[in-house]
Amino acid sequence: MKYGVLGTGMVGQAISNRLAELGHEVMIGTRDPVRSKEKLKSLRETVKKGTFAEAAAFGELLFNATGGAVSMDALKMAGTSNLNGKVLVDISNPLDFAKGMPPSLFVSNTDSLGEQIQRAFPEVGVVKSLNTVTAAIMVDPQAVAGGDHDMFVCGNDASAKETVVGILKEFGWSHIIDLGDLSAARAMEMYLPIWLRLWGALGSGMFNIRIAQ
Amino acid sequence: MKYGVLGTGMVGQAISNRLAELGHEVMIGTRDPVRSKEKLKSLRETVKKGTFAEAAAFGELLFNATGGAVSMDALKMAGTSNLNGKVLVDISNPLDFAKGMPPSLFVSNTDSLGEQIQRAFPEVGVVKSLNTVTAAIMVDPQAVAGGDHDMFVCGNDASAKETVVGILKEFGWSHIIDLGDLSAARAMEMYLPIWLRLWGALGSGMFNIRIAQ
Repeated sequence: MKYGVLGTGMVGQAISNRLAELGHEVMIGTRDPVRSKEKLKSLRETVKKGTFAEAAAFGELLFNATGGAVSMDALKMAGTSNLNGKVLVDISNPLDFAKGMPPSLFVSNTDSLGEQIQRAFPEVGVVKSLNTVTAAIMVDPQAVAGGDHDMFVCGNDASAKETVVGILKEFGWSHIIDLGDLSAARAMEMYLPIWLRLWGALGSGMFNIRIAQ
Repeated sequence: MKYGVLGTGMVGQAISNRLAELGHEVMIGTRDPVRSKEKLKSLRETVKKGTFAEAAAFGELLFNATGGAVSMDALKMAGTSNLNGKVLVDISNPLDFAKGMPPSLFVSNTDSLGEQIQRAFPEVGVVKSLNTVTAAIMVDPQAVAGGDHDMFVCGNDASAKETVVGILKEFGWSHIIDLGDLSAARAMEMYLPIWLRLWGALGSGMFNIRIAQ
């Protein structure tokens, strides 16, 4: 399977490098490949570089690794026809930095960014996942507590979720909890405020939660 | 120290019984002690029964164990003069059941119920805690995973938090994370949506999260 990764921040780079390391064909997409040239130097050579539209057209499975505030714009630039019929792993968080630190959310409670994306692109299989951990843990859960902690997925399409669970397992995730349909993206995004407070209290983003039963 | 517990639901009963079991003097407060008589039968005999105002006057340390939607009313009935100068452990969650299941929150993101209570009663040392687990776990963390999971506290008054940490330890909590000032109540209350989804996915509320580092 070919992968397209939208976004060249820490998340997009981590996902792209990990996919390449796993031997997959991957293209990372950016608003302006020329302007992002310096930033893209840390990527493995086998990671192809292109625009949002080129990466979306290239990938059979796509990752939205753009910042939440620009996700909708980036997906529009990727183009509906390049997205339709594909699975999109939505990693974005609707963080609003305009009202001071820690950031609040620009959508929450009775709606979510994951659902907004799904409504804007109804022919895409949106699966929310990976947004609850820092980039380094997304692609290497063994980096903390031997991988003994939990990842969540939600989405409206069961087969899309199954596909995403497959790649999460390749990344090294062994505990994956299906929270149901995409309205659970509200819960996964509203987890961010406590993640941010824990980051402050623990002095590091290298942590995750494990369900204790 | 004497304890006052506002609210006679599962949370108020669990807290009151546990405090009595630990040998503390405790009064549980309700809107109408006569109407609540049947409900209060499951309480230990040593738990005193009274109105919100009587329980607030009795206690040196108070627990707000009322439902979030009625917390402000209950505290007003308890009376500012009975609350002032005391520490109040706010366990409430601002759950809004009017918009269908799972419930949304009637305050969130840039404010919280904990902060609303603090603003309404500025002379009270509000400490948010215990709202992230089910009643049985609040008072007996060993009930799941041998107690190896995390409780959070936040509040503006360091000595109030210290007092609350003391009683949490008596309940059996060994992992207590201070998330900072009371604005962290936003994060602790916004955790509820994922708690509710996990409850659905796991088929039981007998769980908590543990930080994996």
